[in-house]
Amino acid sequence: MKKVRIGLLGAGRIGKLHGENLAHAVPQADLKAVADPFMNDATREWAADMGIENVYDDPEKIFSDPDIDAVFICSSTNTHAEFIMRAAKAGKHIFCEKPIDTDLNIIKKALAAVEEAGVKLQVGFVRRFDHNHKAVHDTVASGRLGAPNIVKVTSRDPDHQSMDYIKVSGGIFMDMTIHDFDMVRYLSGSEVTEVTAYGAALSGAGYEKYDDVDTAIIMMKFENGALGVIDNSRAAHYGYDQRTEVHCDKGAVYVSNDLNNTAMVSSAEGVEISKPTWFFLERYNNAFIAEAKEFVKAVINDTPTPVNGFDGIQPVKIAMAAAVSLKEGRPVKFSEIG
Amino acid sequence: MKKVRIGLLGAGRIGKLHGENLAHAVPQADLKAVADPFMNDATREWAADMGIENVYDDPEKIFSDPDIDAVFICSSTNTHAEFIMRAAKAGKHIFCEKPIDTDLNIIKKALAAVEEAGVKLQVGFVRRFDHNHKAVHDTVASGRLGAPNIVKVTSRDPDHQSMDYIKVSGGIFMDMTIHDFDMVRYLSGSEVTEVTAYGAALSGAGYEKYDDVDTAIIMMKFENGALGVIDNSRAAHYGYDQRTEVHCDKGAVYVSNDLNNTAMVSSAEGVEISKPTWFFLERYNNAFIAEAKEFVKAVINDTPTPVNGFDGIQPVKIAMAAAVSLKEGRPVKFSEIG
Amino acid sequence: MKKVRIGLLGAGRIGKLHGENLAHAVPQADLKAVADPFMNDATREWAADMGIENVYDDPEKIFSDPDIDAVFICSSTNTHAEFIMRAAKAGKHIFCEKPIDTDLNIIKKALAAVEEAGVKLQVGFVRRFDHNHKAVHDTVASGRLGAPNIVKVTSRDPDHQSMDYIKVSGGIFMDMTIHDFDMVRYLSGSEVTEVTAYGAALSGAGYEKYDDVDTAIIMMKFENGALGVIDNSRAAHYGYDQRTEVHCDKGAVYVSNDLNNTAMVSSAEGVEISKPTWFFLERYNNAFIAEAKEFVKAVINDTPTPVNGFDGIQPVKIAMAAAVSLKEGRPVKFSEIG
Amino acid sequence: MKKVRIGLLGAGRIGKLHGENLAHAVPQADLKAVADPFMNDATREWAADMGIENVYDDPEKIFSDPDIDAVFICSSTNTHAEFIMRAAKAGKHIFCEKPIDTDLNIIKKALAAVEEAGVKLQVGFVRRFDHNHKAVHDTVASGRLGAPNIVKVTSRDPDHQSMDYIKVSGGIFMDMTIHDFDMVRYLSGSEVTEVTAYGAALSGAGYEKYDDVDTAIIMMKFENGALGVIDNSRAAHYGYDQRTEVHCDKGAVYVSNDLNNTAMVSSAEGVEISKPTWFFLERYNNAFIAEAKEFVKAVINDTPTPVNGFDGIQPVKIAMAAAVSLKEGRPVKFSEIG
Repeated sequence: MKKVRIGLLGAGRIGKLHGENLAHAVPQADLKAVADPFMNDATREWAADMGIENVYDDPEKIFSDPDIDAVFICSSTNTHAEFIMRAAKAGKHIFCEKPIDTDLNIIKKALAAVEEAGVKLQVGFVRRFDHNHKAVHDTVASGRLGAPNIVKVTSRDPDHQSMDYIKVSGGIFMDMTIHDFDMVRYLSGSEVTEVTAYGAALSGAGYEKYDDVDTAIIMMKFENGALGVIDNSRAAHYGYDQRTEVHCDKGAVYVSNDLNNTAMVSSAEGVEISKPTWFFLERYNNAFIAEAKEFVKAVINDTPTPVNGFDGIQPVKIAMAAAVSLKEGRPVKFSEIG
Repeated sequence: MKKVRIGLLGAGRIGKLHGENLAHAVPQADLKAVADPFMNDATREWAADMGIENVYDDPEKIFSDPDIDAVFICSSTNTHAEFIMRAAKAGKHIFCEKPIDTDLNIIKKALAAVEEAGVKLQVGFVRRFDHNHKAVHDTVASGRLGAPNIVKVTSRDPDHQSMDYIKVSGGIFMDMTIHDFDMVRYLSGSEVTEVTAYGAALSGAGYEKYDDVDTAIIMMKFENGALGVIDNSRAAHYGYDQRTEVHCDKGAVYVSNDLNNTAMVSSAEGVEISKPTWFFLERYNNAFIAEAKEFVKAVINDTPTPVNGFDGIQPVKIAMAAAVSLKEGRPVKFSEIG
Repeated sequence: MKKVRIGLLGAGRIGKLHGENLAHAVPQADLKAVADPFMNDATREWAADMGIENVYDDPEKIFSDPDIDAVFICSSTNTHAEFIMRAAKAGKHIFCEKPIDTDLNIIKKALAAVEEAGVKLQVGFVRRFDHNHKAVHDTVASGRLGAPNIVKVTSRDPDHQSMDYIKVSGGIFMDMTIHDFDMVRYLSGSEVTEVTAYGAALSGAGYEKYDDVDTAIIMMKFENGALGVIDNSRAAHYGYDQRTEVHCDKGAVYVSNDLNNTAMVSSAEGVEISKPTWFFLERYNNAFIAEAKEFVKAVINDTPTPVNGFDGIQPVKIAMAAAVSLKEGRPVKFSEIG
Repeated sequence: MKKVRIGLLGAGRIGKLHGENLAHAVPQADLKAVADPFMNDATREWAADMGIENVYDDPEKIFSDPDIDAVFICSSTNTHAEFIMRAAKAGKHIFCEKPIDTDLNIIKKALAAVEEAGVKLQVGFVRRFDHNHKAVHDTVASGRLGAPNIVKVTSRDPDHQSMDYIKVSGGIFMDMTIHDFDMVRYLSGSEVTEVTAYGAALSGAGYEKYDDVDTAIIMMKFENGALGVIDNSRAAHYGYDQRTEVHCDKGAVYVSNDLNNTAMVSSAEGVEISKPTWFFLERYNNAFIAEAKEFVKAVINDTPTPVNGFDGIQPVKIAMAAAVSLKEGRPVKFSEIG
């Protein structure tokens, strides 16, 4: 079996998740190395369990290793663009977690480096590989319901991140809604032309201290004439609320949440069903595997990756437009950004 | 049993619907008279079947009849305000179909007449009496989920009205979304302070000829800090899509559609379930009965009606704000209207 | 409008239910008289509210009234057969609540009288007119799923009847499962050939004192080769559990319960949905109206009634077979009965 | 990390499934060897991909290897008991696929060997580890609904096995329903005391040629007084139908099927939802992983396995009772068997 030899950059929560999938669930991946500047014993033990041969502090060891075909960039956001450029220069194919960066010029430089090197780049918009959202996409893309009219995304996290995290998150649109901005592009098959955002800090958790909000609704217009809307909350409490819907010329398709099980318990007290799965690790577990498989397949077959550099920059620009809209209290054209 | 003696004004589709409910399903109602300027044999026969004693062309016969306690105004919108004023002057209690009028000054004059006469007025926002939306309202109002953060309404008609109807409808916000504007007030327990509306004519049915749209999304801010969103379509094709949802501090409540039955048919070809009920006659049948019962009860017990004149004027003002927003492409403050 | 002039026999719970439907919800019914040996002021007031002209203690007044076309027999079971015979002799069409009787010879005499008089008879197996079970029936009857293989009925009452009621009920199979025996004939389109019944008194409510059970499972074979199973409980506590299912050559159709509303309340504590509707008044309300309309239509159009005398006797015989099976601990052939 | 060194016996479909899970999804398993008398290149390649060091034709190589702690017996049913005895003699812990054997005396000899050797034995009733059935079990076992009254299992395969398979399958009860017989023991927390089985060959696929049926309903009594029922079909066509339900003193718990996704597609043509997952590989994938983890944990911690030898023999005896019942057309006591 032909295999892609992979180096993992970053062994935090998301890095370990990708590492486990590459080690166990992606037959054509050969996870050979991991680099993390905060390498410690626990991570070394984890790497041993994963059967990873080489464990480094210094990512350069990976970039300069001729036996590495591709890298998974799972380090902190502020290193993504630099690592993309170094990997491209070294001729490695690149899987990079979202977002590429929060600065458009830096993203453009990184994408230019990828282009120049002719390596493949896939950005980690994992939800495109979820069985539910993919079913919505495929139904719309099949054309059987006609053109999309209304694209709706409900996306609510189960509980607050720490305020330390929020402080450096880049704001709700760049940190959280960015997945939903990718989703509306994916589901509508079209590009956003205008955004109006409403937001509020309602939870009492303190988002307002960082000029951020915990609750938001964002309306969009699309090139193909459709309208869209996203609603977000930082703390749903009942689990990860991830529903999408597209209303088309001839009908609609929508998906409800995945539940922990299908049990219904009925008694005089009432009827209980399962809560949705708790968070992205539970809900998008299979989607993470699927996106890694798709990347590996694209490398082996020399075909385009399913989520490319353009797909990486567009949601960042929409997030920027949303931030301007929220701040200035007006609709913002996509063309105003960058 | 104490009964309220009622005169019905207007015997079109909605008038006959109320008439049948008053005759058959509201024990404390005594439907004594009907007046319609287009009175004909079919309507006379219908009135006989309903056991209505007096059948008139001229509404004055009802206003001047001392044996009539209350009127149901189900005539065309442009007569509502005038009939309210005449009924008030005659000391009759008033149930009036929505909207009271599309002109704020006329509505205010009508409400002033009601106030002066000291009669009761109930406006026909029937969805407040639906078992599903009421369950959402009651859950929110109970406070068990904390304060509302996001109020969502999906409201889509099953199929296009005729273009003759659209031409004189007053536009989607005044004709159709007005019910949803009432619903967001009912569910949030708060007043709208700002509206931003997006709309488009996507169906090809010709709404654009009358400066109207068939597809709309409207965002709102509420006095209590909550955010809201409504999405509308004039033609869902699969039935009447009537879903509401409120996301609160501690969780969310939402309702899906009523279906024709609970059957699931599974075969190699796929799994089919029932479509939603077709339109308002099917979906809100029991709600129409409930609102009539509530009106009759308020008259008999001399208690406030559940949907009063203020509830009648507010959605009209929100609809006006939405129309300005759509036209001018900007958020519109509720305070800009009227 | 042509109307059927009806006399109501028995004004208990089920009699009043039919009376209200005939008075209000069946336009072609003219409910002219009611007779009940226990006539009292409350029932007289009820009759006045229903607009019933003639109120009697003595049913003979109805049988002998030439202005009565048909009777609704809603009196106690032990009077059904006698009233059928008297009504038949008087040339009145007959709607009779289930069961006709618990003695086969008496039923046969009653049916013979109906036959001889040439009047119409409809037996009150109301569930055939329920939107859900009808959807199962219609799917099977359409043939699109091929022949039936497995017919399943879950039928559980919400709570115990009083032991006074149980004492004279005739046992669970004759009193409660009889509806399900009708249902399996209706859904399978075939006749039962063998029955094996298991039963137990598990609730502690005391059924064993009357040689009765509160919990039962009954297996059946059908003439067309299909197999069937019914499960019963006298006390589900969460509401009226009424689910049916048919598994066929090419797939299956099943129906879940009707719920009070579609609300889903999600919080950290869990996710709650509505309980099923409480009991037959709530669940089969529309079905009672539909069966009355069908009876009236059959009388007016002189067509066969949808549930005839044969449909009335068959479930009684199956109930008898089940009782023998439970007592003797063996499969019982339908041909062993009567 | 402490690991259990495992040898795999049999590399057919179910053997490979366990092998992949042990290699990738059970961190504390170290899959060191595989033996299969029909070893070929494809299997050797598969073993290499799994990182299995030793690949044999002869199972003896595994039994005699001192570096093997435990075996997974996934060979054909007629070898299970022999391999159990050889493994026990060699002091290896044993995971064995169901059924242990179809001959009671042979099973007893095998279990005696396990007992004597003091090794652990787990039998592969995988459904106990499914998230849905486990939720039913846990709800019942918690006691919150009181004692079980009715235990129901619907279990239908998606499509026919080949007639070559059916010929040697041991009949529907031993081959297919055996899982359901385990399930009713698991859910009821009690032992079966009597069985009555109905069965029929309705599909036209030819089961009758082998004295077998494709459709069955089986009723049971339990020691704790509860009643039970299983319905089976060899060919549901719409997917794997795996529903369980327990009705208790105070209410009920039931689980519906897992679906491929939660999409609902609504149009004028109707409303479609996803089919259930296709078969056991899709539905019980996570359950296979969970049962392997439980086995490995029991070995490492020296605790009892969750499905022991007694759990292995009981369903075989129930299957035998069901076969007698079907043949002789009568209820069969569990005590009549073995």
